[in-house]
Amino acid sequence: MSTVSIALGERSYDIRIDRGLLGNNDELAGVVQGQQVFVVTDQVVAPLYLEKLLAMLGDKEVYQYILPDGEETKSLENYSAILDKMLEIPCDRTVTVIALGGGVVGDLAGFVAASYQRGVNFIQIPTTLLSQVDSSVGGKTGVNHSRGKNMIGAFYQPKKVLADIDTLKTLDQRQFSAGLAEVIKYGLINDLEFFQWIERNIDLVMAQSPAEMEYIVSRSCQNKAHIVEQDECESGIRALLNLGHTFGHALETATAYKKWLHGEAVAIGMAMAAHLSRLNGWVDQSDCERVSLLLAKAGLPCEPFDDIAADTIMQLMKVDKKVQNGRIRFVLLKALGQAEIVEQPEKAKLLATVAHFARG
Amino acid sequence: MSTVSIALGERSYDIRIDRGLLGNNDELAGVVQGQQVFVVTDQVVAPLYLEKLLAMLGDKEVYQYILPDGEETKSLENYSAILDKMLEIPCDRTVTVIALGGGVVGDLAGFVAASYQRGVNFIQIPTTLLSQVDSSVGGKTGVNHSRGKNMIGAFYQPKKVLADIDTLKTLDQRQFSAGLAEVIKYGLINDLEFFQWIERNIDLVMAQSPAEMEYIVSRSCQNKAHIVEQDECESGIRALLNLGHTFGHALETATAYKKWLHGEAVAIGMAMAAHLSRLNGWVDQSDCERVSLLLAKAGLPCEPFDDIAADTIMQLMKVDKKVQNGRIRFVLLKALGQAEIVEQPEKAKLLATVAHFARG
Repeated sequence: MSTVSIALGERSYDIRIDRGLLGNNDELAGVVQGQQVFVVTDQVVAPLYLEKLLAMLGDKEVYQYILPDGEETKSLENYSAILDKMLEIPCDRTVTVIALGGGVVGDLAGFVAASYQRGVNFIQIPTTLLSQVDSSVGGKTGVNHSRGKNMIGAFYQPKKVLADIDTLKTLDQRQFSAGLAEVIKYGLINDLEFFQWIERNIDLVMAQSPAEMEYIVSRSCQNKAHIVEQDECESGIRALLNLGHTFGHALETATAYKKWLHGEAVAIGMAMAAHLSRLNGWVDQSDCERVSLLLAKAGLPCEPFDDIAADTIMQLMKVDKKVQNGRIRFVLLKALGQAEIVEQPEKAKLLATVAHFARG
Repeated sequence: MSTVSIALGERSYDIRIDRGLLGNNDELAGVVQGQQVFVVTDQVVAPLYLEKLLAMLGDKEVYQYILPDGEETKSLENYSAILDKMLEIPCDRTVTVIALGGGVVGDLAGFVAASYQRGVNFIQIPTTLLSQVDSSVGGKTGVNHSRGKNMIGAFYQPKKVLADIDTLKTLDQRQFSAGLAEVIKYGLINDLEFFQWIERNIDLVMAQSPAEMEYIVSRSCQNKAHIVEQDECESGIRALLNLGHTFGHALETATAYKKWLHGEAVAIGMAMAAHLSRLNGWVDQSDCERVSLLLAKAGLPCEPFDDIAADTIMQLMKVDKKVQNGRIRFVLLKALGQAEIVEQPEKAKLLATVAHFARG
């Protein structure tokens, strides 16, 4: 059992990380205060875990909203439909919204909780590795727009997060690997020791050994917490967490979120960031190879692809949220375990990087 | 010139109150940081003040969005349309959203600013008395839903508020009176001295004498700030500001926001709250008469109406945001200048109050 405490003043909360949290009634005691509970989940997760959650809610007045699975679900239309449902019931301001599922469910339900009657109680029960190590910390909520990912949303902190690592067993291998991309990211950003630990233990990690699972989830959450606590609303160093994301978001948008999972796009994005860092004279060829090798062992893509034009990627990066005053910001690697924010990298090097990976 | 400072830690900001703020370039210097500015206004206000605002923005890259006038404008549809427009441009995270207009424009543009890329810079230039004394303080933003007012939104603070009292000259008398309802409300809640001052000076106020205008706007903002600073997200005493609002919102919803302006509905709501307070044995008949007399002198309705059934009002109050765990909360008057939150007042007295004002 690990507990990572996120220190954000009056918005502080705990992330509990363990096997068997779903089904342990004590875990929700005290955090569900009102009588009404509105559970948001999806068609894949509901058959697996909804019953266990309902059993934990005893005598509460519980409503459930089951979404289709997939990134397209994270839309303003579904946001609006959930609010309609809550107002139809009607839920009052003491309602607790619980997100049971992966990042899509968490981000969408979180934005609902942030804005229903200007904000109600929110609990996250992430059931994927990606959401346990990423969405559990930091309070980013929101929906996608046809013009870009996460363009509409809010910073809104949950009251508690339950990361039950038993739920990872039901993840397919591809989803599990996608989560590992973010785990590796924390190592690359500012935890070389963790990166090296993953290199050494990648086989146990891929076999989902419980002790290693608990370790990577809690160390990832600690790493993210350390950054978020210094910069809750991403005005400064929190941008480091976007390592691989400027490239990755463009790849996802270009393929309408269909070809790659988010973590896969981030994995390629990290390989691209490493490449650009090398062109900048920071990391060297052998560092780039270590990154690619670990990504590959983690079952992640990091090789060139031939189905997106370099121009398309360049264009899409301009509408990314990380653009500031028309300048594209990247997170690059000074060294492994030492990321840095770079405004407007030299265009020729950026183009060379994109051209190396994409179709010319 | 008055400045009311709202002390909310890192979310602190100033409200400037004076004649001629629109047109004074210094007022926006330093608060519009990025290059892009997205102005939201409406068809009534744009012809009057948009040009003055644009002149203040000099060499910025300015976009404008002109909404239809009226409460129906405050919808999730318009919210979504504004976001579409901003993404089409595309605006980046350094954009400043400026709301130029009354409460509808401020609330809608504020929710856009709160959620565009999870929050961008926001400035309010309220041009109605109601928005100067109410929406300028407290950071409430949001949109209406067919099932109730302000059901979707966020708490989001502006970087600065410019309350140019010259803009009040172009308000029609009815809109001006509607604003006075909230001014009188601050006196009733916890500023008996201000209530008495308004009683003495109501003629100068109704004549919009500039010195009196500056005084009522700044004293109202101070009163509201004093409460909001103690309770930013309305978990406690901020609810006092809802004096007249539980009744008022039900009246607005019952008449589809068409019969009364918000301030008018609040005025009747305050008369109803005074009536219910009297039935509780708190204020006496002469207090109720003082309230009604001042509301009437301010050009506000406070008499019984015959076009809404008492049952309808009772039903609508149940979905109000002020409902907690199924219990309706009211703000009543212990005395003039001393409001108190009451959970679930005695049903017979509540019914008697509603029946006194509405159709049986």
